[in-house]
Amino acid sequence: MLNDTIAAISTPLGEGGIAVIRVSGDEAVALAGRLFRGRTKLTDMPTHTVQYGSIVDPGTGEKLEEALVTVMRAPRSFTREDVVEVGCHGGIVAVKRVLDALLEQGVRLAEPGEFTKRAFLNGRIDLTQAEAVIDLIRAKSDRAFKVAMKQVDGKLSKRIGALRYRLIELMAHIEVNIDYPEHDVAEMTSSMIADVGTSVSAEIDELLRTAEQGKILREGISTAIIGKPNVGKSSLLNALAQDERAIVTDIPGTTRDVIEEYVNVGGIPLRLLDTAGIRETTDVVEQIGVERSRSALADADLILLVLNRSETLSEEERELLAAVKDRQTVVVLNKTDLPQRLEIEEVRELFSSERIVETSLLEERGLADLEKAITALFFQGGIDANEMTYVSNARHIHLFKQAKRSLRDALDANEQGVPIDMIQIDLRAAWEQLGEIIGDSVAESLIDQIFSQFCLGK
Amino acid sequence: MLNDTIAAISTPLGEGGIAVIRVSGDEAVALAGRLFRGRTKLTDMPTHTVQYGSIVDPGTGEKLEEALVTVMRAPRSFTREDVVEVGCHGGIVAVKRVLDALLEQGVRLAEPGEFTKRAFLNGRIDLTQAEAVIDLIRAKSDRAFKVAMKQVDGKLSKRIGALRYRLIELMAHIEVNIDYPEHDVAEMTSSMIADVGTSVSAEIDELLRTAEQGKILREGISTAIIGKPNVGKSSLLNALAQDERAIVTDIPGTTRDVIEEYVNVGGIPLRLLDTAGIRETTDVVEQIGVERSRSALADADLILLVLNRSETLSEEERELLAAVKDRQTVVVLNKTDLPQRLEIEEVRELFSSERIVETSLLEERGLADLEKAITALFFQGGIDANEMTYVSNARHIHLFKQAKRSLRDALDANEQGVPIDMIQIDLRAAWEQLGEIIGDSVAESLIDQIFSQFCLGK
Repeated sequence: MLNDTIAAISTPLGEGGIAVIRVSGDEAVALAGRLFRGRTKLTDMPTHTVQYGSIVDPGTGEKLEEALVTVMRAPRSFTREDVVEVGCHGGIVAVKRVLDALLEQGVRLAEPGEFTKRAFLNGRIDLTQAEAVIDLIRAKSDRAFKVAMKQVDGKLSKRIGALRYRLIELMAHIEVNIDYPEHDVAEMTSSMIADVGTSVSAEIDELLRTAEQGKILREGISTAIIGKPNVGKSSLLNALAQDERAIVTDIPGTTRDVIEEYVNVGGIPLRLLDTAGIRETTDVVEQIGVERSRSALADADLILLVLNRSETLSEEERELLAAVKDRQTVVVLNKTDLPQRLEIEEVRELFSSERIVETSLLEERGLADLEKAITALFFQGGIDANEMTYVSNARHIHLFKQAKRSLRDALDANEQGVPIDMIQIDLRAAWEQLGEIIGDSVAESLIDQIFSQFCLGK
Repeated sequence: MLNDTIAAISTPLGEGGIAVIRVSGDEAVALAGRLFRGRTKLTDMPTHTVQYGSIVDPGTGEKLEEALVTVMRAPRSFTREDVVEVGCHGGIVAVKRVLDALLEQGVRLAEPGEFTKRAFLNGRIDLTQAEAVIDLIRAKSDRAFKVAMKQVDGKLSKRIGALRYRLIELMAHIEVNIDYPEHDVAEMTSSMIADVGTSVSAEIDELLRTAEQGKILREGISTAIIGKPNVGKSSLLNALAQDERAIVTDIPGTTRDVIEEYVNVGGIPLRLLDTAGIRETTDVVEQIGVERSRSALADADLILLVLNRSETLSEEERELLAAVKDRQTVVVLNKTDLPQRLEIEEVRELFSSERIVETSLLEERGLADLEKAITALFFQGGIDANEMTYVSNARHIHLFKQAKRSLRDALDANEQGVPIDMIQIDLRAAWEQLGEIIGDSVAESLIDQIFSQFCLGK
């Protein structure tokens, strides 16, 4: 039943000034109305108005909470259904009282992502836009947010729409040609297939080229800080975390653990592996040995190998250097403030100069170079979140690749003179695969799976 | 400057569907209006209406976020000032972008509690109501919430108002008497002082009697679960936590750590000491020895001493029993499902039967008895959050006690035939002390201190 009335706590749980419980569905206004006491009945409130009042137990009349209720009637709402938002005090007991009272009236607890799912199913947004909503919420950096925002705005949908339009034009042309097969038309059609197929395929290539970077912006680079004890791993972590604090420092009260595993380096979120392990050791001697560092390597997309510039290389460090030389590694030569003893030539033999950075974390020097080195490793062409449409979603990447393959098949068949009604099948497949990205004709099970990744109340 | 425009994130920080940024002050609508693009200008929106649109950087025109904005004009708002609430996506980056944009327009970041403080300073609520707002948000159980709700509703203020009214009547009468001193009036006045002073004092006593229970409902009972290894401390913790889950279990996605240290027993929040320590041991052997248990005792208001009914008492357990017999202790005789070997008479010698509970945590038996035993220890008269006005705030308790002392002084002086203009001073002191509870003539520094305990955005 699509339009049954659902409710969920839409704000993060915890102690805060305000919490919002969202109710959506045909009966949203009527059912929430039973609980609300204000100057005007909830059912009499015009759309897009707000009223202060109480949420009461309709049986006993007991006042459960003070509330500020907002009524938004279909279709001018997030879900395109009637929506009531109940703003109450931001404590766990407060939201629970209001939510329970709603559920008692027959409102159903929403599944994760169900509000956004309804916005999609009711045609307010397409699937890429819906998927980007969760990316917006989870964004770990401003750049990641901008990428998601463009997708929410439908920038990716528009590009896909344009590609599909060209394919459907081509397919229409072929359809005519099948019905009225004349020689010169066939020849024209063949060159048209080659033209359109090649250029659509090229544009998909261009989009796919953004995929790796899009994924990085979205999910962060999993990063291991390794090195023998006492070289400055904790100091590096803290110096990077300084940058992270730059995102949140002017929001007093921010819970650090929400983003604890992420630090921001030039807009790129680094997801630090084994952070807790490193942190633990800040006050005593650093206890993370080479053995443990090695095990962190397996999962890392980026390795920051810290060496002490003021000491000679140990045997273990030589082993580490050799082990990571073919990985995405930046070698951090720390403690440049002390006399230099490290055999830098040995490091230079294994790593190009762009991948070696000298720092004095004590004197806060060298961090800009480190940022540059990391950015260069992952964004050779530079980052341009303002202008580019990034493809960041694994589902999208997969479908783009499928569509590209279908086009390749069509182009090959066209070259080999295969009958055009056969080619039509490949073109149609490409058209459908692109459509699946924006949610055209996707299976219900897939839709369920996509929205189940959402947080509750969205 | 009272009415400068302030803003803060009013929802808990974290990932969620919605976050709300609240803006309040003379310029709230104008300043937020510079960032908003919608069908109607924000400044043209009627009060208590909602509009969907974008938050943009007014310099570059870049779209920062989608938003649902609510305009509530003074005096019909939480602060009695113009208020704009900006609802956006519930991620950290999203709220940061919107908040930053507001701050760039000259909005000031609100201090913790500043919205509620303005509601108080602008006369919408009194001090006890303002203080109860934070209690509402922090409430750990439904009962605690109800107690705070009554206070938000002004129930305590009304009782204090009634007491003060009787005192001011009395003081007016005395004033007349000072101006026209005649014998029979003086005698009448003296008996009036005795009457009113005694009955107001008695009513304060009644309120103070609720203080201990009010404090418990508000802050929880700090509870230590002690006992030697393997008697079932972890099982007890888990069984109690089951009850706690009853508060939140039907809110999927609830972060457990928000309330992790609290469990609810019959509506009384128990704040468990050393929970982590107990939890750690669930999978291996329980490692919390008697020594460690003892150190937890010092801070505990309630001690749950767990013994294994199927073993004889150890020397250490005998010591423990003796150590806690004069404390608020419930002895939990666990493992009643096994053959009974414990020397129960020894326990009975030290503890009355109401303080001994037999459980089989394995078979989930005995928990109701435990709940009854705990409730009886702290709420001899039963709990009645629906009807009673609880005094739960330390500041209130202190002032009630002061007022009672002032009344005592007045009554004593009256008995000793002290001139009534001297008695008047004591009565006035009582009247002022009661007034201070509701925020009448309190010092600015105190107000600052009270509101600084609030969370941000409230």
